[in-house]
Amino acid sequence: MIVHVAEAAAALQAHDDILILTHRRPDGDTAGCAGALCRGLRQIGKRAYILENPEITRRYAPMITDCYPPEDFNPQYIVSTDIAEEKLFPDTAEQYKGKVDLVIDHHGSNSGYAYETLVDDGAAAAAELLTTLIPEMGAKITPEIASCLYTGVATDTGCFRFSNTTAETHKAAAALIEAGADVERLNERLFESRSHARVIAERMALESLEFYYDDRCALICLTWDQIQAAGVAGAELEDLTSLPRSIEGVEVGLTLRQQKDGSFKISVRTGHDTNACNIARRLGGGGHPRAAGCEISGNPDNAKHAILEEVKKELDRADAEKEAQ
Amino acid sequence: MIVHVAEAAAALQAHDDILILTHRRPDGDTAGCAGALCRGLRQIGKRAYILENPEITRRYAPMITDCYPPEDFNPQYIVSTDIAEEKLFPDTAEQYKGKVDLVIDHHGSNSGYAYETLVDDGAAAAAELLTTLIPEMGAKITPEIASCLYTGVATDTGCFRFSNTTAETHKAAAALIEAGADVERLNERLFESRSHARVIAERMALESLEFYYDDRCALICLTWDQIQAAGVAGAELEDLTSLPRSIEGVEVGLTLRQQKDGSFKISVRTGHDTNACNIARRLGGGGHPRAAGCEISGNPDNAKHAILEEVKKELDRADAEKEAQ
Repeated sequence: MIVHVAEAAAALQAHDDILILTHRRPDGDTAGCAGALCRGLRQIGKRAYILENPEITRRYAPMITDCYPPEDFNPQYIVSTDIAEEKLFPDTAEQYKGKVDLVIDHHGSNSGYAYETLVDDGAAAAAELLTTLIPEMGAKITPEIASCLYTGVATDTGCFRFSNTTAETHKAAAALIEAGADVERLNERLFESRSHARVIAERMALESLEFYYDDRCALICLTWDQIQAAGVAGAELEDLTSLPRSIEGVEVGLTLRQQKDGSFKISVRTGHDTNACNIARRLGGGGHPRAAGCEISGNPDNAKHAILEEVKKELDRADAEKEAQ
Repeated sequence: MIVHVAEAAAALQAHDDILILTHRRPDGDTAGCAGALCRGLRQIGKRAYILENPEITRRYAPMITDCYPPEDFNPQYIVSTDIAEEKLFPDTAEQYKGKVDLVIDHHGSNSGYAYETLVDDGAAAAAELLTTLIPEMGAKITPEIASCLYTGVATDTGCFRFSNTTAETHKAAAALIEAGADVERLNERLFESRSHARVIAERMALESLEFYYDDRCALICLTWDQIQAAGVAGAELEDLTSLPRSIEGVEVGLTLRQQKDGSFKISVRTGHDTNACNIARRLGGGGHPRAAGCEISGNPDNAKHAILEEVKKELDRADAEKEAQ
């Protein structure tokens, strides 16, 4: 059942012994929402805890770990924050599948797995929703709660850079700063620091960087051996796929990552002139107009050659289209 | 004479044939303010132009170049935006020294060189001031003006990341987005792209990256030959000095850059526990608690050895201080 902020607030007020769930690979939004909601509920006299999330990272842990429940806690009302579907539950939440009372989310794709669904797909972060829900349920946005919610809003928008950022997002940020969010320290911790692994991954990527077609195409190619030697994991490698396209003047950015079986997983990112999906589709892949992917087997030189051929065709097509206009 | 927004708006309304000045090495704030103000003045029927700035870069040029004056323009009222002192005037503005009627600025250090000074040192950008000044003088914030002002606010705050960002900054951003600023395209152009030279400089820096003292110190060392081979200029190299300290867990970040004469210019950046100035001062340099510098002659190994010795002393001092608490 779809509910609005006032109904969700009333439901929370009407219950006690509340357990809050966060999602797998927890980010700043799920952890920030859980941390803020738990503190808000306690403020209005509720017993509330956050379910242990074994994957929580050092960066977001302080918002939730001190709210983990004691062993004898027997929850009567289950809330999930920023979780679009049950398969995103962490392992610890298996027993709560089919039993969530209220989900607070901003994914339009929310599967409706909870008894009551509060979802606003125009919100840049679930935390944006909580900036109105928490006062609505009668709690004050303390500096600590404001810091949790600011973390959610700021991380889900890449610090107000991504296209999901709206005027409402900035208004929420203004309200959270006025409520005492420790914005200077948070921005430093969230955005000015890179993990050791990330730096190693970037070094590896930049060492392999090549330019083609008058620098309109940039390519990173990482072999299985290089990836193993650098000891970097999936998440750091995923982040690299935006790197080649982020270089000024580059229209097509390619990231080739060799798999254990020797084949290459290729990410294609394009600017406004070309279509990434056109490029990937011809090699059996697919995706979106500006982000697509495919797989090619063979040695690095063959893989590069095959994808660069398709890039050339797409650049030529875009040029011809421009000329025709 | 210090004036407030209403007086500045009245002064602009009372004059015509207005010329707007931007500063040397023009950034997004000076160019964005000039572009917005010029368009606002024209909207209320004024003849207004922006003085040519020979140093304008491709990134900010579209906001000002189409407002350059015709040769026979004879300005009667001179306004400068985001310029703290006359020595920051571009070469083209020599003749206007001592003749500025109104300065619109957010630097508390403004020297008061203009006849009337509108300054708010609590504003993150001069553009923040113009979001109220332009409506006050009777002009509408059009989408084009909003994009100019958003550029000023966003660039001066590192996209709302720097410590000058306040609740007011976010409110200004919200208002500009509501007024039609092309925020998605602007963020992409301003923050998601790195110059070719910047990428080459980063590659060079990361290749030389070393860690010391349980990864609490990170060091980049670039020889004169490496810098020459990479063909990167001063600005790209300056930006690199924040890189080593930005790695998670690094308390002291060092950047050693060899000069033409063989000596090393060393930048020291520290976290909250140690004092950069303590480190630099012992080698004849100086600076601030978190950012300092010094110069050392000798080969790379000697230079590294000398600075690392001082880093060790400072880390030990910080550890001892912590233990004593």
